[in-house]
Amino acid sequence: MPNRCIRPGDNPDLTKERETCTFDTDELAANLYGSRRNLERRREISQKVSADPDFADPIPHEFLSREKAVDATAKKSKVIFQKWKNLVKPEEMPHLVNEAVGIQGFPLALHHAMFLPSLNSQADDDLAAEILPRAKAYEIIGTYAQTEMGHGTNLRELETTATYDKTTQEFVINTPTRKAMKWWPGNLGKMSNYAVVCCQLIIDGKNLGPHNFLVQLRCEKTHEPLPGITVGDIGPKIAYNTTDNGFLALDNVRIPRRQMLMKHAKVSPDGTYTPPIHAKLNYGAMVHVRAHMIYSHGHLLARAAAVATRYSAVRRQGRIENGGPEVQILDYQTQQHRIFPQIARAYAILFAGQEVRDQYAKTLEGIANGQADLLPDLHALTSGLKSVVTFMGGLGIEQCRMSCGGHGYSDASGLPKLYGVQIGGCTYEGENMVMLQQTARYLMKGVKWAEQGKSLSPSIAYLGKKSGKSLIGLKGGDITREHEAILETLEHTARRLAIDASQLWEKRIKGGECKERAWNGVTVEMNRASRVYTRLFMARSFHRRLLSSPSSIRSVLSDLFSLYLHYECVDMAQHLLEDGHCNGGQIQYLKKRLYEDLTTLRPNAVSLVDSFEISDRELNSVLGRRDGNVYEALFQWAKQSELNYTDVLPAVKNYMMPMMEENRSKL
Amino acid sequence: MPNRCIRPGDNPDLTKERETCTFDTDELAANLYGSRRNLERRREISQKVSADPDFADPIPHEFLSREKAVDATAKKSKVIFQKWKNLVKPEEMPHLVNEAVGIQGFPLALHHAMFLPSLNSQADDDLAAEILPRAKAYEIIGTYAQTEMGHGTNLRELETTATYDKTTQEFVINTPTRKAMKWWPGNLGKMSNYAVVCCQLIIDGKNLGPHNFLVQLRCEKTHEPLPGITVGDIGPKIAYNTTDNGFLALDNVRIPRRQMLMKHAKVSPDGTYTPPIHAKLNYGAMVHVRAHMIYSHGHLLARAAAVATRYSAVRRQGRIENGGPEVQILDYQTQQHRIFPQIARAYAILFAGQEVRDQYAKTLEGIANGQADLLPDLHALTSGLKSVVTFMGGLGIEQCRMSCGGHGYSDASGLPKLYGVQIGGCTYEGENMVMLQQTARYLMKGVKWAEQGKSLSPSIAYLGKKSGKSLIGLKGGDITREHEAILETLEHTARRLAIDASQLWEKRIKGGECKERAWNGVTVEMNRASRVYTRLFMARSFHRRLLSSPSSIRSVLSDLFSLYLHYECVDMAQHLLEDGHCNGGQIQYLKKRLYEDLTTLRPNAVSLVDSFEISDRELNSVLGRRDGNVYEALFQWAKQSELNYTDVLPAVKNYMMPMMEENRSKL
Repeated sequence: MPNRCIRPGDNPDLTKERETCTFDTDELAANLYGSRRNLERRREISQKVSADPDFADPIPHEFLSREKAVDATAKKSKVIFQKWKNLVKPEEMPHLVNEAVGIQGFPLALHHAMFLPSLNSQADDDLAAEILPRAKAYEIIGTYAQTEMGHGTNLRELETTATYDKTTQEFVINTPTRKAMKWWPGNLGKMSNYAVVCCQLIIDGKNLGPHNFLVQLRCEKTHEPLPGITVGDIGPKIAYNTTDNGFLALDNVRIPRRQMLMKHAKVSPDGTYTPPIHAKLNYGAMVHVRAHMIYSHGHLLARAAAVATRYSAVRRQGRIENGGPEVQILDYQTQQHRIFPQIARAYAILFAGQEVRDQYAKTLEGIANGQADLLPDLHALTSGLKSVVTFMGGLGIEQCRMSCGGHGYSDASGLPKLYGVQIGGCTYEGENMVMLQQTARYLMKGVKWAEQGKSLSPSIAYLGKKSGKSLIGLKGGDITREHEAILETLEHTARRLAIDASQLWEKRIKGGECKERAWNGVTVEMNRASRVYTRLFMARSFHRRLLSSPSSIRSVLSDLFSLYLHYECVDMAQHLLEDGHCNGGQIQYLKKRLYEDLTTLRPNAVSLVDSFEISDRELNSVLGRRDGNVYEALFQWAKQSELNYTDVLPAVKNYMMPMMEENRSKL
Repeated sequence: MPNRCIRPGDNPDLTKERETCTFDTDELAANLYGSRRNLERRREISQKVSADPDFADPIPHEFLSREKAVDATAKKSKVIFQKWKNLVKPEEMPHLVNEAVGIQGFPLALHHAMFLPSLNSQADDDLAAEILPRAKAYEIIGTYAQTEMGHGTNLRELETTATYDKTTQEFVINTPTRKAMKWWPGNLGKMSNYAVVCCQLIIDGKNLGPHNFLVQLRCEKTHEPLPGITVGDIGPKIAYNTTDNGFLALDNVRIPRRQMLMKHAKVSPDGTYTPPIHAKLNYGAMVHVRAHMIYSHGHLLARAAAVATRYSAVRRQGRIENGGPEVQILDYQTQQHRIFPQIARAYAILFAGQEVRDQYAKTLEGIANGQADLLPDLHALTSGLKSVVTFMGGLGIEQCRMSCGGHGYSDASGLPKLYGVQIGGCTYEGENMVMLQQTARYLMKGVKWAEQGKSLSPSIAYLGKKSGKSLIGLKGGDITREHEAILETLEHTARRLAIDASQLWEKRIKGGECKERAWNGVTVEMNRASRVYTRLFMARSFHRRLLSSPSSIRSVLSDLFSLYLHYECVDMAQHLLEDGHCNGGQIQYLKKRLYEDLTTLRPNAVSLVDSFEISDRELNSVLGRRDGNVYEALFQWAKQSELNYTDVLPAVKNYMMPMMEENRSKL
């Protein structure tokens, strides 16, 4: 069957891998990206970006100082938003940006992700009419400033205040302490001249809670900070170093009353406060962001898997049998066991991400028709997925990186920065431990509803089912029935863990603790239950995708799904065994199957990562190049190191040469 | 009991934590560093480095470009090796370097770690007499070049050749292909003017295998590369960016015959080759390096645990009970469960590291007396420890970092670079998967020896014991007997996994596979067995340390050891359950104990990390400062960002301001 990535001049080891492909790589890619047309557009954009001289990098970013990298990114961003803006559809923009500037951020990232959406959904008509056209036309650049140095997710404790002054009909905005400074918002430090700032609204000495205000930060002409405003960059981070995450202190900054975002809550000229009708209007926005995060994290893991798989096919080292030639390192079982589960997980995460994005769209439709009952389920699910997927992805990228040996440690591999970008997802948009507890709170409700025989939302329907005996290993060779046996075992385990956690919690309450303190005594167990609930959903989601896939790719997806299930079960074996639902023989059966899966998948491994359809430019990895010609490329890359601008480094001339000279003359 | 770290002006939350200490932090620190005297010397060095203006950093390294950071490091290195050299003992040098220049490498790192030792142990008397005094006096700087771009651990496949030319009595050295270039050696790129280079020795067309040769790389006067030599820096990496890891191509470079390191193997002027008497003379050196790696990795994890614990004591966020004040995040069970096991593991790794260092010294003594029988045991043990400890440390540091929320992602926390430095350990000095297989090969021998009733070396003595019933949970409140019950259960599990793996291997061989191919089909299981063997040793080692500890710190060490054991068992529960040796009730008992341990340890958590005795300068973390005054420090740190040199960034002036201007004028 055709792998469509074979080209003359490729590394023969990689061509050999592609020739053993048993499916059509384009069909899998089209399935992954939704349609043949989407796949073609994806390629078109990749090709056009590569061909545009405005996007060319004279020196790769890896070798630039932070200031120069920010400069190069700003330069290309201007090209995107002046020249390219109308050439791509909004949903294609993330791919264009990835191709053109990479994954570490750009000056208008928060303008799109937060500034425009918050104005759109929260500004009243007057303010929207004034500011939105200017923002959409990129006459101004904005961001959203909520997090403070001393306060993260807990909005009620934000210290920044907006105090209403009736006499002038203005709000006076202050960050009263050091730790009240806004800290972390992307593009706040240097790029933005406006921001939506989250402040405690104070009227007549009364704190009415956090509200959003539009604040101009910098002069539109000079870009200098306005009076009362201290703003700057918070310094280097693991990654996202082309993003100017910023700090902001406000010292009696006055803004007109109408710059409060008053679509929902309102303050009249005389200081009368009208609260919003719905208390939790931001709920949907969080679900939206997390639903999209899941898909994009699948893509980050896919990149790492592509790099590791291709490199492992061209790298030869050591022998399996004495006397033979050096083998491709992809032939080692340990290497397959590191990398193949990451391929499977990347697909699983991408599939789950697409499913929750679709569910989000359906939920929105429902809300438009007055039905918001699917939202809590989706909220619990996206919270769980956000947490599980970001941590799983981080572990997976690191396994891929380490499987590349020493070269994986070099920025040439692209993997260090990929990990840096990816692992931030464990923290932003809701810290993972907190997310898992949100999921657990929903599970605890589900356990109660199930006890009471109530109907259960889709993601927790299994809580109402009865457990039978685990049929793992008892289905002979029937792969379809084996998949179902494993899924049912996972359902039992997810249910059992939720019920166990619920009982532990109740026991503490009965022992005299208040609900909240008792909760804090069982959160580790609660989080375990949330993780297994989430991993069950991922397995079910992959299974649905398999069942609905066209026959041309069904076989390879089934192999991949088998590997996925077996790996997940072995990874969670403790939970399968703990209550005796599975016995040791069943776990050993799963392991045996897993090792067989590695062998089965071997001939399709490179083709499966080819179907991720990531261009060389987007992948940005010397080791992961499509053509597999890595060694010459590695040398060409390294020569550009800033330490190689001179043969004799100033550090040597100034310190090491004099040191050696002094010591020689001592004799 | 006294925590000795309380000072006026400290963050009151941290002082409060220190006041609940139940032991003497100095006594634990003295125990950790071997003696009260060692502890005092450690403090002296820290203080003197801080006071030396030559070591002052006008701008923290985090804000420097790579070239400037290399420059600052070279400047300080000259101070260390010209001014300080004779003020510290050799064994104190690592601490001095850590304090003065940090952990990312310095120009003379490989000179000490590899160049001097290889000359010492392998150069013949003539060459040693000529070169060693110059090297020791820092008249020259050297490194050791073995790894090639296309070849890592498998020495037999190195491509660099040293061909003997009888007519001139010279070796002609060549890197015949691109991937034959030496690649990765530290300090090779820019700093060193000499290197010991590992080459295939060719005489009369016959390849006599890898041998070492002293090669001058650069002119001593000008530091320019000599003719035929291409040398440079390989570019940026995850960390170690103040180290010039280098590449080296050699094109018909001629060196005199006597620059072969000929203490063992020899080439006479007429080209007669005399092989070395002992084949594996480097064996001991590898064990030595790995034994030291283990301790230093314990120290890296200790730093991360110190940062996370202290910061979690001063960070307040959210509430456990409604209406109460915001709580220290260290009060959350999830936070304790992330951090406390890392404290315990850091101690466990430090203890294990000290034990194998001592064992190494004893083994050397044995070898001096003609008894080398302890070396294979120590080799298997250090291979296993190297692998387990580096991976465990990486996971632990990341847990600590993520437990600091967003600020952990900033270089201000010091944790990103700490992870970067630490995680390299999974790859260098023997890739972890390969290391575990070396351990497994020894275990397989052990299983055979045990079957045959032979006497077993210390680390595998348990292979010869008989398993009883697991007594976990059956020892009432007797903590001493409980520890022993857990250790015996771990012994059973380690034994069972080794025997199972051995049987799987045999089964494949009986099925018709050759030994080597059969091995490749069971390596994942082999590696599991090696990990549990290693973790058993770590638990036993911690236990020995507990039993020999003075009574003043016995109680807190016992609490820490309980937490350690319970955490490890829950982490390995799958293995405990798989063969039915433990039942689910016992695992639930271990979890219950673990959650109790978290509460028990809470009042001593800060004091336990204080006893790591890491100075603020060495810790290099705004979040981990001894005084806990993090927020003001964070702002002072961030102000130094290179993006803050100007209020209006050139990137904004050149691209974003013109973009906005163009769009405004369109209207």
